Amino acid sequence: MSEMNLQVLLASRPTGWVEEGNFSIVETPLPEPGPGQVLVRNHYLSLDPYMRGRMNEAKSYAAPVAIGAVMVGGTVGEVVKSRHPDFKAGDQVVGYLGWQLYGLSDGTMLAKIVASKSVPLSAYLGVLGMPGVTAWVGLMDICAPKAGETVVVTAASGAVGSVVGQLARIHGARAVGIAGGAEKCRYVIEELGFDACVDYKAGSFREDLKAANPDGIDCLFENVGGEIFDALLARMNPFSRIALCGLISQYNSEPYPMKNIGSVLMNRIKMQGFIVSEHLPRWPAALKELGEQVASGRIKYRETVARGLRQAPAALIGLLRGQNFGKQIVKL
Amino acid sequence: MSEMNLQVLLASRPTGWVEEGNFSIVETPLPEPGPGQVLVRNHYLSLDPYMRGRMNEAKSYAAPVAIGAVMVGGTVGEVVKSRHPDFKAGDQVVGYLGWQLYGLSDGTMLAKIVASKSVPLSAYLGVLGMPGVTAWVGLMDICAPKAGETVVVTAASGAVGSVVGQLARIHGARAVGIAGGAEKCRYVIEELGFDACVDYKAGSFREDLKAANPDGIDCLFENVGGEIFDALLARMNPFSRIALCGLISQYNSEPYPMKNIGSVLMNRIKMQGFIVSEHLPRWPAALKELGEQVASGRIKYRETVARGLRQAPAALIGLLRGQNFGKQIVKL
Repeated sequence: MSEMNLQVLLASRPTGWVEEGNFSIVETPLPEPGPGQVLVRNHYLSLDPYMRGRMNEAKSYAAPVAIGAVMVGGTVGEVVKSRHPDFKAGDQVVGYLGWQLYGLSDGTMLAKIVASKSVPLSAYLGVLGMPGVTAWVGLMDICAPKAGETVVVTAASGAVGSVVGQLARIHGARAVGIAGGAEKCRYVIEELGFDACVDYKAGSFREDLKAANPDGIDCLFENVGGEIFDALLARMNPFSRIALCGLISQYNSEPYPMKNIGSVLMNRIKMQGFIVSEHLPRWPAALKELGEQVASGRIKYRETVARGLRQAPAALIGLLRGQNFGKQIVKL
Repeated sequence: MSEMNLQVLLASRPTGWVEEGNFSIVETPLPEPGPGQVLVRNHYLSLDPYMRGRMNEAKSYAAPVAIGAVMVGGTVGEVVKSRHPDFKAGDQVVGYLGWQLYGLSDGTMLAKIVASKSVPLSAYLGVLGMPGVTAWVGLMDICAPKAGETVVVTAASGAVGSVVGQLARIHGARAVGIAGGAEKCRYVIEELGFDACVDYKAGSFREDLKAANPDGIDCLFENVGGEIFDALLARMNPFSRIALCGLISQYNSEPYPMKNIGSVLMNRIKMQGFIVSEHLPRWPAALKELGEQVASGRIKYRETVARGLRQAPAALIGLLRGQNFGKQIVKL
């Protein structure tokens, strides 16, 4: 193996929107696994909104990526060399090896998977990976919708949102999506089977929101934050729940001044912020249901695929601007 | 009984701050109890922040008071005539008979109480009434502080806040109050035994807040809202809890634009709005503990007493401006 490794490093911290100049791309020698280590050739890299937070220096729920370090990220690939008893060359694995062609692992946070015709390798980064489990935990454990209740999810066509709405319907709830653009809303309704979708770019958001939720909102799965979140707060029902999963609209800008927090008191709302990696005991149950529903075709998903690691910075910027459609991945 | 009844009616709905002109005071004939009814002479009327919401026409968690109707409110008094099998003349009762000297009841929401030297009648409107149980439910059921954790409560010298901090200390937590003015803070620390108190009128709120909470905040019992709430959000710890009980600073004004809601996500906070009247199954446990702690002197309280029903409008306005000290009542 004389091939070189290719890595994307964090070169500088963004102020406001991420730019391609915040990254540098380097070729480095292929590392050699030490005792207990495996070398993995990554085939797909996952791009996710949380990565924006890791680029900041400020304390968040996880440590920032250091300047000059490989950008963090979920990956699926194949073991090429192993000095670890649980893995052998040829094993397909999902892990957290970052923005690089090859990565070393000591086996922690590395799990063997089996791709098939109905479940391709890349699905383990989306519907059967962190985003799918995020949807499941927030919906089932925090929102816990009852049959007939209305579940609203923002970024409804995205990797998380698309699973939230489909799961909500499987469990008997009414699913309403919020998405940016007529094409995304058409997809959310016609292909994913949501009951309604509000295009927040259509210019009549508050009226459309009211029309789409004639009985108010019982569960809000919030990914976006800002003005949209504030408007949704005003339509929450008594004893409703909010699973606060993300605030993507706020990651590159000053926080939006929220006016409707009083709704949490007036409507006796339960709101909970959560990070799926802190709910590990729930992953098996989540992956069991998601696996069955994906295999049976009841849960559908879509991917936007960037080609080649060098495209990863532009693809992340597009994701943060909502230009992707479904799960954003990079084919390496 | 040739005495007349005296009643305070809602005359008009306030815009912004309540004014005395929003009320009218009328003398009316004493009502005669019908079958199954009791006539009660009220001795004390409770004044509480929630009353501001009832003066609005807008939908809230309870129906508004109608123009021309008697203002609602909690009362303690004595049965003077009874045609109800469970009550007889001379019984001391706590009820919800409103801003009037005499009130009729069919027995619902009317409970017999026994005043004593250590527990006077008026205590059933405060520490052993709705405010005390509010403190208990929000602290014990929503915040559930562990020993050594930091509990912050706003409006700390008030009827609810004073109980929150004392209960928190009884259960091994560190209690930090937020109050308006040096005198209130002195009372909170020296008489109620809180570990620290931040005077939000002192002009160095953010620095003082940080100094008073060197280990961050694990439980926030929020009564005030607005800028103070926003600043507190920024100091919450991971996995902290917020019992959202009131937003008194917002009741007479436009909502404050909150900037720090992102903390709910970053710190995986659980926030819950609640209304104590919806937690009736918890009242017996709450009143048992509060009764024991008040009788033993471990929970102290203070009252601000307005003299005569005609003073009730001015006293409510003072309460909404934070001019009371402890529980605001009116001696009738």
